[in-house]
Amino acid sequence: MTKKICLITGVGPGTGTALVRRFAAEYEVAMLARSNERLAQLAQELPSAHAYPCDVTNTPQLMHVVEQIRQDLGAPAVVVHNAVRGAFGSFLEIEPEVLEENFRINTMSLLHLARATAPAMIKAGEGALVITGNTSAYRGMAYFAGFAPTKAAQRVLGEAMARELGPKGVHVAYVAIDAVIDLEWTRKRYADKPDDFFCQPADIAEECFRLAHQPRSAWTYASVIRPFGENWTLNA
Amino acid sequence: MTKKICLITGVGPGTGTALVRRFAAEYEVAMLARSNERLAQLAQELPSAHAYPCDVTNTPQLMHVVEQIRQDLGAPAVVVHNAVRGAFGSFLEIEPEVLEENFRINTMSLLHLARATAPAMIKAGEGALVITGNTSAYRGMAYFAGFAPTKAAQRVLGEAMARELGPKGVHVAYVAIDAVIDLEWTRKRYADKPDDFFCQPADIAEECFRLAHQPRSAWTYASVIRPFGENWTLNA
Amino acid sequence: MTKKICLITGVGPGTGTALVRRFAAEYEVAMLARSNERLAQLAQELPSAHAYPCDVTNTPQLMHVVEQIRQDLGAPAVVVHNAVRGAFGSFLEIEPEVLEENFRINTMSLLHLARATAPAMIKAGEGALVITGNTSAYRGMAYFAGFAPTKAAQRVLGEAMARELGPKGVHVAYVAIDAVIDLEWTRKRYADKPDDFFCQPADIAEECFRLAHQPRSAWTYASVIRPFGENWTLNA
Amino acid sequence: MTKKICLITGVGPGTGTALVRRFAAEYEVAMLARSNERLAQLAQELPSAHAYPCDVTNTPQLMHVVEQIRQDLGAPAVVVHNAVRGAFGSFLEIEPEVLEENFRINTMSLLHLARATAPAMIKAGEGALVITGNTSAYRGMAYFAGFAPTKAAQRVLGEAMARELGPKGVHVAYVAIDAVIDLEWTRKRYADKPDDFFCQPADIAEECFRLAHQPRSAWTYASVIRPFGENWTLNA
Repeated sequence: MTKKICLITGVGPGTGTALVRRFAAEYEVAMLARSNERLAQLAQELPSAHAYPCDVTNTPQLMHVVEQIRQDLGAPAVVVHNAVRGAFGSFLEIEPEVLEENFRINTMSLLHLARATAPAMIKAGEGALVITGNTSAYRGMAYFAGFAPTKAAQRVLGEAMARELGPKGVHVAYVAIDAVIDLEWTRKRYADKPDDFFCQPADIAEECFRLAHQPRSAWTYASVIRPFGENWTLNA
Repeated sequence: MTKKICLITGVGPGTGTALVRRFAAEYEVAMLARSNERLAQLAQELPSAHAYPCDVTNTPQLMHVVEQIRQDLGAPAVVVHNAVRGAFGSFLEIEPEVLEENFRINTMSLLHLARATAPAMIKAGEGALVITGNTSAYRGMAYFAGFAPTKAAQRVLGEAMARELGPKGVHVAYVAIDAVIDLEWTRKRYADKPDDFFCQPADIAEECFRLAHQPRSAWTYASVIRPFGENWTLNA
Repeated sequence: MTKKICLITGVGPGTGTALVRRFAAEYEVAMLARSNERLAQLAQELPSAHAYPCDVTNTPQLMHVVEQIRQDLGAPAVVVHNAVRGAFGSFLEIEPEVLEENFRINTMSLLHLARATAPAMIKAGEGALVITGNTSAYRGMAYFAGFAPTKAAQRVLGEAMARELGPKGVHVAYVAIDAVIDLEWTRKRYADKPDDFFCQPADIAEECFRLAHQPRSAWTYASVIRPFGENWTLNA
Repeated sequence: MTKKICLITGVGPGTGTALVRRFAAEYEVAMLARSNERLAQLAQELPSAHAYPCDVTNTPQLMHVVEQIRQDLGAPAVVVHNAVRGAFGSFLEIEPEVLEENFRINTMSLLHLARATAPAMIKAGEGALVITGNTSAYRGMAYFAGFAPTKAAQRVLGEAMARELGPKGVHVAYVAIDAVIDLEWTRKRYADKPDDFFCQPADIAEECFRLAHQPRSAWTYASVIRPFGENWTLNA
């Protein structure tokens, strides 16, 4: 039997790689990231993972890559938008363009990606689009002016698409991580924190995989996850 | 190997029975409901399901039953609070006592149940308490004055317990069903609706089962589920 | 011209007294509280303020007092439900009855009060019911299991009544104070905090007064207020 | 005594003009809009209203106009960001650029405006920035993919700025209108609706004026307003 296709953006060392490993167990996975190095390594390690280096903010390039994936592997049944770029700082001091660039990668590329991949899912009468986010999708903390608006926009864009695609059998879901993800650099920054403090990339990937396969009578749009030991600040 | 124990309240014909079937596959299940008839039938059908007829608003009776379960089967590792009573009508016309009674079954019995079962979970350093709810947990629609406040109270009580129990390894989760559940009486009332309109009890039960087994680095408190084809009114 | 009537529950030393002062400037005010001492003082000081000692959880007494006010002053055009009782502590250690009692004062007495006073407002085609609350109306923090559920229930009860009464010209509004109110005992507990840390009772009273008089084309249900200098934790 | 300065963007025929009228009663008002025609009329009618034709998405032009206002009138004590552009349609059919353009006018111009005007407010230790929005700031309805994300981003940007500016004495507030505003074109589109269906621009303007003058111990960030007779869909 032919495996279904899964497209994943933002294949970095943490959640992105974990997503690839999880989905590669059951899908042919098309991996997108700007740099090819990690993609090439993963492709070598995992026979079902295929490298498609791409800057998702370069729309013609993104459209070209999606078309290439369709020809090479087939139309994606699942798309995971994990590409993200953040920023931190006073709204008075950040470069305003930072907000616009983050909007381009976090929100606009989601719209382009959905436009390129949803029609085949609609035709098939099934499919899933999963988006990874965080608490900035719900609130604007001080010094997050350059980032939080783009995650809120992303969540609400996903919601608008979910309401439109749902009745056509295509599921859109948003995973908000209310925690620090366990990564090399976060371990350094939070060196005093115990293991329990961190959210595991493999668990995030599992949650994305689960949402992509929910039964049709019980779909979730927004899923918020956090470690059991952690301080819990979001009302959700 | 000895099976773990699961306690389920509100074992009615829909979600309650589906919960029993789902958990009985892996747990010894203690079933609570006011009438013994359904419990006896399920107990006969499922060797792992055990009948404990009980009115959860009768606190001494509830305490007695929880103690009996502990002696018969052992301390519950999972508790699912599915018992519920509703009401509909203008706040000017309902009997005010209805609100108080619904609070007793929907909210107070959850508190009593949690007090009786959480200490053993804390001692074990693990366990789960799952609560089933609906959109009334989030908003007060007109003519829901006798019901919605008790579900909102229930959700917020669960949240307070989740924040207290989480760091002790005990997971509390709230499943809100934003849909009409597929039951004999709902099929009659919504006779013109297609199958897709209804949320399946088996899918609700699966979601409760899943939440009771989430990995510790990625717990969810509030999970909202709805059928794919359905009108979607809640902002969550 | 005859002044309109305003009924205020929970006339304690802080917000309650400030509410009386604010509304007494333009209304005949019926003051409710369990103890008569403060009411008598206020009644002596303010000619428009009238003492109606009453335990709002004693429903027959509450009904009697509302009827007495109607005979003495007339039917209230504005009702402010400020009576509240709280609790703090682990859900495992509080007396469970505390939650039920808080529900009675915070939620049930609101229902009884609204049932007794809304019909005259509906008949008049205008009127307002304002409820004072706090962040527990939105979330369940750890150790607030005995209190937060009752404020969430209160907010959602008010919302259900707002949706039912709105089209009849009667406005229901909920003021959530996301701060510590400036009171004798809070000043002692937070002795190290500057003036800016506290929310002023007079400002809360002004907000309630304003909401009671909003133009009909632009009503607010939920209003969250907090001091400018304060740490801001609620997503609202 | 010299009047304080108020800057208003998006001076269209509805809310924008109402804002100008309301603030001109107590402020010198700098009016911004792309077309000069309405501004010139208002400037002639209202001696305190001054025309500054400007495309707020043209950042150098916006910066120039803010500087011009500062020289002509003084630094604004109040800024009202009412400029908005919307879109409607399936995410599959809209031009993707529409979302980016709406982000530029609804969100980016707010950031630029705040960066240009907040420093003087911080120096003064007081000031207000009021943003007008709607229910799209909270949720993504189907067919609102080209618009809702930009309002959600705007609300969250305002929130991030509110948390940063609040402790410096500068108030940021967001007014979400959960209704159809009473305008020439909306009256035509909803010709069958009664007067009560519509939210009055003058009432919206009054709400913005009020928020700009709240006492410091009781600030509101998000204010949702709706007509009394109206169907009420937002959970807020």
